[in-house]
Amino acid sequence: MSDQLLFHLIDLAGTFAFAISGALAAQRKNLDLFGILAMAYVTACGGGIMRDVLIGDIPPAGLMEWRYLATAMVAAVITIVAFRQVEKLTNPVRLFDAMGLALFAVYGAHKALVFGHNAEVAVIVGMITAIGGGMLRDVLLNRVSLVLQQEELYATAAFFAAGLAVLGEYSGWPPLWRTWLPIVAGFLFRWIAMRQKWVLPTFGRRD
Amino acid sequence: MSDQLLFHLIDLAGTFAFAISGALAAQRKNLDLFGILAMAYVTACGGGIMRDVLIGDIPPAGLMEWRYLATAMVAAVITIVAFRQVEKLTNPVRLFDAMGLALFAVYGAHKALVFGHNAEVAVIVGMITAIGGGMLRDVLLNRVSLVLQQEELYATAAFFAAGLAVLGEYSGWPPLWRTWLPIVAGFLFRWIAMRQKWVLPTFGRRD
Amino acid sequence: MSDQLLFHLIDLAGTFAFAISGALAAQRKNLDLFGILAMAYVTACGGGIMRDVLIGDIPPAGLMEWRYLATAMVAAVITIVAFRQVEKLTNPVRLFDAMGLALFAVYGAHKALVFGHNAEVAVIVGMITAIGGGMLRDVLLNRVSLVLQQEELYATAAFFAAGLAVLGEYSGWPPLWRTWLPIVAGFLFRWIAMRQKWVLPTFGRRD
Repeated sequence: MSDQLLFHLIDLAGTFAFAISGALAAQRKNLDLFGILAMAYVTACGGGIMRDVLIGDIPPAGLMEWRYLATAMVAAVITIVAFRQVEKLTNPVRLFDAMGLALFAVYGAHKALVFGHNAEVAVIVGMITAIGGGMLRDVLLNRVSLVLQQEELYATAAFFAAGLAVLGEYSGWPPLWRTWLPIVAGFLFRWIAMRQKWVLPTFGRRD
Repeated sequence: MSDQLLFHLIDLAGTFAFAISGALAAQRKNLDLFGILAMAYVTACGGGIMRDVLIGDIPPAGLMEWRYLATAMVAAVITIVAFRQVEKLTNPVRLFDAMGLALFAVYGAHKALVFGHNAEVAVIVGMITAIGGGMLRDVLLNRVSLVLQQEELYATAAFFAAGLAVLGEYSGWPPLWRTWLPIVAGFLFRWIAMRQKWVLPTFGRRD
Repeated sequence: MSDQLLFHLIDLAGTFAFAISGALAAQRKNLDLFGILAMAYVTACGGGIMRDVLIGDIPPAGLMEWRYLATAMVAAVITIVAFRQVEKLTNPVRLFDAMGLALFAVYGAHKALVFGHNAEVAVIVGMITAIGGGMLRDVLLNRVSLVLQQEELYATAAFFAAGLAVLGEYSGWPPLWRTWLPIVAGFLFRWIAMRQKWVLPTFGRRD
């Protein structure tokens, strides 16, 4: 299997997992058929659309390439048809989600560099690619973003993956390494944080 | 009356209706004068501004053309001066709103095609043009978007109108037909759905 | 001290004050370390990023220039380390915030004109520069925007400063006047409104 193909498969698997998290959240809020499809799409593609607006790739790939839309719709329909079963599949969904998180962060950072932007833009845009869809989902469903509340270092894993990707490109690592090392490292970081229930400190109200 | 003029009049009538819905919502949340004006403007022009950012028409028409701003301000002032009366005008307001919804969807899709984008971009951007302002209104007022909760197929009507417009342009319908058929069909769809209280299925919490 | 340097210092002081308001709000919502840093950055740089997307300056300066990110991070760390003390520093923080508000409004309007856009774009974009970050902060923290609820003419001061800046540029005032008069006037307007507890009328539910 070529590298390019594997990349695409993980990209779509991440899109799929993000779409499922959007569709599940929409169903729990009792949205209708359209609302579920829309939330699946927004959660899956929102981060990439923000990325493309910020780096100047118009129109955004998430609007233009049917694969993303189709993947999100399939995920939404599966979630509707098999809500109970999908809800129970916590582990596979979170597995794909962690893979998508790392891949979106690395791909976003890489794309920003390809468009000629600097390291800071690349790291921030990589993170936005990874967590922007989830933030939109939470804003539209009217809750404090889970991404900001960070169940187990979600956003931190995106930062770690995007930062490593930029480091790799600036340090001239070979293509294979600078692509896959940040993806695998970001994924493992998130996965272990989830398993070990790592948290960052909070400083709270101090009341 | 020329076609162009009629188009403009409906466009401004839609802007007007959207602005009234924003101003009413702001008053119900007890925002002050500025908040009411801002919500009227955001609800009326937010969808078009998102459209222009996504298709690359900078600066967005909603920021640049005084007609939109002026129409929104007039609608807001009328809502303030005659709050009780406007609240009772549910039917005329919803009539304009349904016209605006269909027209914004068709115009948004058309503009995306004019800018050289594909059918998928055009349909999604058409929908965003029609429902984006209402979504911004609800996000800023901190509630789950009514657009996503879809009183009577609101967003679905936008999809229907935008989809028909793209179909018409791809099929080479004559200009008059490809402009007016989707607008009228989208409007009627929304209007009948409202009257008949059509709903899409929800799949709920299943608790 | 040169004009340019003073401009930069106030710009960074405003960024600093906005970042502190974001970090304080995040801590009160009990977000973790990452959430606090992110909210500081979003509050400080969100308005400028919206501005640059709307006027076509890609990538946005808030993503590209390390000074803004660094200033926001320093403000967030200080807020974490000295939460109680910073909470008590209401007056200095609000002083910087009022300076930042006026400066961001004037600079945003000026930048829109430099990019060749018209007066309407410049005034609206100036306001968005000044209040956009605070709006994002409130949307992400899931509350009705304080900016829209306008403690003491917050958004109105931004409008006043941006409007005066555009008037000055169109009227051909000398550079020093058209830069500093709107900044000082906008700042004083906000400061006096705060001291005197000026409010705009609300029109309420009328129930």
